[in-house]
Amino acid sequence: MSKGITKRSEDYSAWYNELVKKADLAENSDVRGCMVIKPYGFAIWEKMQAEIDRMFKATGHSNAYFPLFIPKSYLSKEADHVEGFAKECAVVTHYRLKNAEDGSGVVVDPDAKLEEELIVRPTSETVIWSSYKKWIQSYRDLPILLNQWANVVRWEMRTRIFLRTSEFLWQEGHTAHATKEEAEAETIQMMNVYAEFAENFMAVPVIKGIKSESERFAGADETYCIEALMQDGKALQAGTSHFLGQNFAKAFDVKFLNKENKEELVWGTSWGVSTRLMGALIMAHSDDHGLVLPPKLAPIQVVIVPIYKGDEQFAAVSAKANEIKKALEAVGVSVKYDNRDTYKPGFKFADWEMKGVPVRLALGARDLENGTVEMARRDVVDPNNRNAGKKVVNFDEVVAEVQATLEDMQQGIYKKALDFRTEKTTKVDTYEEFKQVLDEKGGFVLAHWDGTADTEDKIKNETKATIRCIPLDDEAETGQCIYSGQPSARRVLFARAY
Amino acid sequence: MSKGITKRSEDYSAWYNELVKKADLAENSDVRGCMVIKPYGFAIWEKMQAEIDRMFKATGHSNAYFPLFIPKSYLSKEADHVEGFAKECAVVTHYRLKNAEDGSGVVVDPDAKLEEELIVRPTSETVIWSSYKKWIQSYRDLPILLNQWANVVRWEMRTRIFLRTSEFLWQEGHTAHATKEEAEAETIQMMNVYAEFAENFMAVPVIKGIKSESERFAGADETYCIEALMQDGKALQAGTSHFLGQNFAKAFDVKFLNKENKEELVWGTSWGVSTRLMGALIMAHSDDHGLVLPPKLAPIQVVIVPIYKGDEQFAAVSAKANEIKKALEAVGVSVKYDNRDTYKPGFKFADWEMKGVPVRLALGARDLENGTVEMARRDVVDPNNRNAGKKVVNFDEVVAEVQATLEDMQQGIYKKALDFRTEKTTKVDTYEEFKQVLDEKGGFVLAHWDGTADTEDKIKNETKATIRCIPLDDEAETGQCIYSGQPSARRVLFARAY
Repeated sequence: MSKGITKRSEDYSAWYNELVKKADLAENSDVRGCMVIKPYGFAIWEKMQAEIDRMFKATGHSNAYFPLFIPKSYLSKEADHVEGFAKECAVVTHYRLKNAEDGSGVVVDPDAKLEEELIVRPTSETVIWSSYKKWIQSYRDLPILLNQWANVVRWEMRTRIFLRTSEFLWQEGHTAHATKEEAEAETIQMMNVYAEFAENFMAVPVIKGIKSESERFAGADETYCIEALMQDGKALQAGTSHFLGQNFAKAFDVKFLNKENKEELVWGTSWGVSTRLMGALIMAHSDDHGLVLPPKLAPIQVVIVPIYKGDEQFAAVSAKANEIKKALEAVGVSVKYDNRDTYKPGFKFADWEMKGVPVRLALGARDLENGTVEMARRDVVDPNNRNAGKKVVNFDEVVAEVQATLEDMQQGIYKKALDFRTEKTTKVDTYEEFKQVLDEKGGFVLAHWDGTADTEDKIKNETKATIRCIPLDDEAETGQCIYSGQPSARRVLFARAY
Repeated sequence: MSKGITKRSEDYSAWYNELVKKADLAENSDVRGCMVIKPYGFAIWEKMQAEIDRMFKATGHSNAYFPLFIPKSYLSKEADHVEGFAKECAVVTHYRLKNAEDGSGVVVDPDAKLEEELIVRPTSETVIWSSYKKWIQSYRDLPILLNQWANVVRWEMRTRIFLRTSEFLWQEGHTAHATKEEAEAETIQMMNVYAEFAENFMAVPVIKGIKSESERFAGADETYCIEALMQDGKALQAGTSHFLGQNFAKAFDVKFLNKENKEELVWGTSWGVSTRLMGALIMAHSDDHGLVLPPKLAPIQVVIVPIYKGDEQFAAVSAKANEIKKALEAVGVSVKYDNRDTYKPGFKFADWEMKGVPVRLALGARDLENGTVEMARRDVVDPNNRNAGKKVVNFDEVVAEVQATLEDMQQGIYKKALDFRTEKTTKVDTYEEFKQVLDEKGGFVLAHWDGTADTEDKIKNETKATIRCIPLDDEAETGQCIYSGQPSARRVLFARAY
């Protein structure tokens, strides 16, 4: 902990990996590509889950749970879908182990071969639409507005904690509707829910948009997304919402009788965010001293560190610390009193800095005499100025000061991220300029594109930049494709991406 | 819905299956032994989870997440453990599908065979202790008090929704301690947490006890449990807490330096409850009209059904209904106003009765004139007396009456279950009597046992009754084993069980 981490400017990737480890968020397991989410990391994910779940319920959704396993034949029913997922599936072929005849341990029992292989769900459209087939007969059964919190598996070859792992945790919403309009409105609504969560809770500004055809979800007619920008200038897709059209209704023969008693195919949507958001949260705000957390998602918002010599001072400081803790908890602030006697204050300061606790209160014998406490905010740490972000606060003002500081930090780190994104968003009109900006500045590049997959593919191969989305909120502006010179109706958002 | 369900007295098993289906709790999926938990059933599980999670955190535990997959070699490290689980494992052998050469669809890609097979976790001791190996060096790293909410898979041959399914949801606590005493105290604490949850929230009385050696968890030194009695006189194990001794520490070489700087093996516990609790909840209280839920776990505690003719009456009734809804919600009662115009009141009454909503308020035009509402409680339904459980309540007393009724029901259904269990618990002193009680009365049978697995096994084979536990709270009472006549230090609890 005390040794610190690599600087972002030196090696961004090493900085991320060390931070994830030293802030006690997660680690790789011995199972290829699968991570262990440690208690402190999981506590942040739980705060995210609670808020997202509340937003889903406020928009009329209920949770349910569907099987982990998908029969191979189900996965195959939607042609694009199986094409998209078959290459990275964990396949269950047997249901029993037995003792090896040579006594060397347990082996797969060849007599326990499944008749049909089961796929560990990479996503649940197929298993859920096979249920919808049973649940939907009439317009009265619609809409169905469900969500599931679950683990999914995609056998990724190159993995990175939180950003791309073979198993990850996510939520997947799956809805069924009587009309195209309703399904489209649902798709857009959920993209907006994700954007609201990202901006108001994660303090991460996002661009809302539509994916190009080649980046679309396998089985969707349209994929909406929110795209965020990380501190190294790379983009990160933070959430997607898919308009499925009638594709899964066709694949699973899900029809309903409308009010006119005529049979119609059902319209669908699906949408998800995952533990990938943890990666976005870490990379958007953290600094060379460790994690920086938006107060709304910090499991511990305030840590109190006692400064003392001897039992008598410890008792006096602890009494006051616990009093402050109680007063803060009474107004809904989560507080940790770090009374470990196995570590010195300096170690504790660095430890909680690494873990991104927004506010630190240091309380010693002299503070007791003065009736004050030293408050330090995590978003202002300057190794060249010990007093940066510090403030002496009277006891009777601690609660109000802490509340104001937490609020200010939530806004402040959002603004910092937004300013960064604004600075790192460039409009370019030539391919030369495009490549130069990508190499020298990074970030989002707004450029004209002729709308063809061919051009998109060539640009990707030549520059590693992909179309993150066709932004929804930008004004239309005609121009010429930077690659082909063909006409373009609007700029699209390019970036190198995670 | 309106057709009702088979009576318990006619066919208990059919009653259960029909109830689970008609109350919209869950259904079988097309994947063998895997269930779909439907939104209403899942809402009950979410209420259980929230409460259990709160109790875990109050006792110092944090949540974390470990991989779904366990390398085959890990599972094999603890000899008893692999022996216990190898026979029912879902095994992942490949990580990719490919298009069949004959164009017949997708097949497993033989080139994508895993070097080492992965087991879908049946429980996570092995994967978690392999992490503990990395996390624990010194006494300062102990105790570790973790819990994980997860899905697990045990390939059961005979499955039954909620009670025994191939995939189920559960929580699994895994703790590591410096001393035997501390680990034992943790094991007992968690059994007590489970008992408190079962009795105070599920309203299900339980017997706390220790499992006989043959019923012990594979890899434990001692298994503590809570045992509940269902309405058909069969027992149901509702939760287990295992003292693992140093077995997994040995298997995974997990040692720590104690305060004297000497190396010692770590002590462990694990404990779990699962969606099986849903089965217990359903079977303990429900009746021939459907589900009966303890108010503390009911997703909807009060349903308001409007009785009206025409839009004008509907508007007036709705205004009052929404006013009552708001007043109840203000004191923390969850309320559904069932304003569906596609169904008649009689259908709605039966529907909510089936779903076990504790309190129903019916509100019509005449009620508006009288300033009253008709309140019906779910735990008193008598087909021969339409007014059983009903009460006319003045508007200004609705909130207080509902609160008092919910509280009374929570206590009442617990007492009913406790009285039932008392009536169905029999002390016997001969094997003849033992068999007679099992066949004619069912329930718990307290009898002397000689402590041998041989006797236990013979009794099980001859009567299908197993030792549910050696009760902890009973006074010691010496006697002779009902089977062998050998001396016995105390009675143990027998029953036929789920």
